Amino acid sequence: MKFFDDIAIGERFELGRHTFSADAIKAFARSFDPQTFHLDEAAAARSHFGALCASGWHTASVWMRLMVDYQRREDAALRARGEPVATLGPSPGFRELKWLKPVYVGDTISYATEVLETRTSNSRPEWGIMTIRNTGVNQKGEPVISFVSVAFVERRKGGGPA
Amino acid sequence: MKFFDDIAIGERFELGRHTFSADAIKAFARSFDPQTFHLDEAAAARSHFGALCASGWHTASVWMRLMVDYQRREDAALRARGEPVATLGPSPGFRELKWLKPVYVGDTISYATEVLETRTSNSRPEWGIMTIRNTGVNQKGEPVISFVSVAFVERRKGGGPA
Repeated sequence: MKFFDDIAIGERFELGRHTFSADAIKAFARSFDPQTFHLDEAAAARSHFGALCASGWHTASVWMRLMVDYQRREDAALRARGEPVATLGPSPGFRELKWLKPVYVGDTISYATEVLETRTSNSRPEWGIMTIRNTGVNQKGEPVISFVSVAFVERRKGGGPA
Repeated sequence: MKFFDDIAIGERFELGRHTFSADAIKAFARSFDPQTFHLDEAAAARSHFGALCASGWHTASVWMRLMVDYQRREDAALRARGEPVATLGPSPGFRELKWLKPVYVGDTISYATEVLETRTSNSRPEWGIMTIRNTGVNQKGEPVISFVSVAFVERRKGGGPA
């Protein structure tokens, strides 16, 4: 993670993409969302979704995975350039999560994050607070998920950009 | 699911409880949130969490599982009494998700749902819209997760309570 001081409002991060297989959709559903339209092709065809599709919690959890992988690549790149790496604090939660379209078998979702707002913490001046909008868009360009989250990001010692 | 017309504001549903094992925490984290404090006891002990704890997405996904199981039990009970069962529509999403405390290995989380608001749909009069607050509380009585969701619930044909 880069430091809070180096993050600009409007900045956009492409986190990566993920293709949802029938096996992965069913495995998630068996554990966490065993509704028939996430488990069985024939039942899903008869449902309002029309075909097997991923649990919304699966679509959201894949965002988390790609975010972790993205940060690791970023941290490795910073270290390779001999630059310090900032700590990302725990997330207090998020808001306005919308499942906009179903995610069907074979859909490839591209996840991205955009910085909406940044502010420093009054109570903890070593941290900045970043509000981000996270989105997933399918291969047709249709948004399938959107949510807004808040994250604590470490500030440079002494503050100010590098 | 009972019909929208039979749901009262303030009504509370106890969905059930779930104990988080180290194996389940690590399995979820390997797929969706491979941060060290969700994967490795020693690394977690050195982190700000102090011990191995579940991904927030895991805590949320377990809510979904218990909600599905709860609805199945409800539907079976309605059918056993010879009563009709209402359809629950797809969820458009939720808001204000807060992870309030970590969920550690061995913690037992009790999930509940409370009806905050009900209103009929103007555009789709066969459906009611129910706003619910979903919470998870650990064995010490501490809230660990809270979020607000909206669900479409079928109305009785002709409207009005049974």
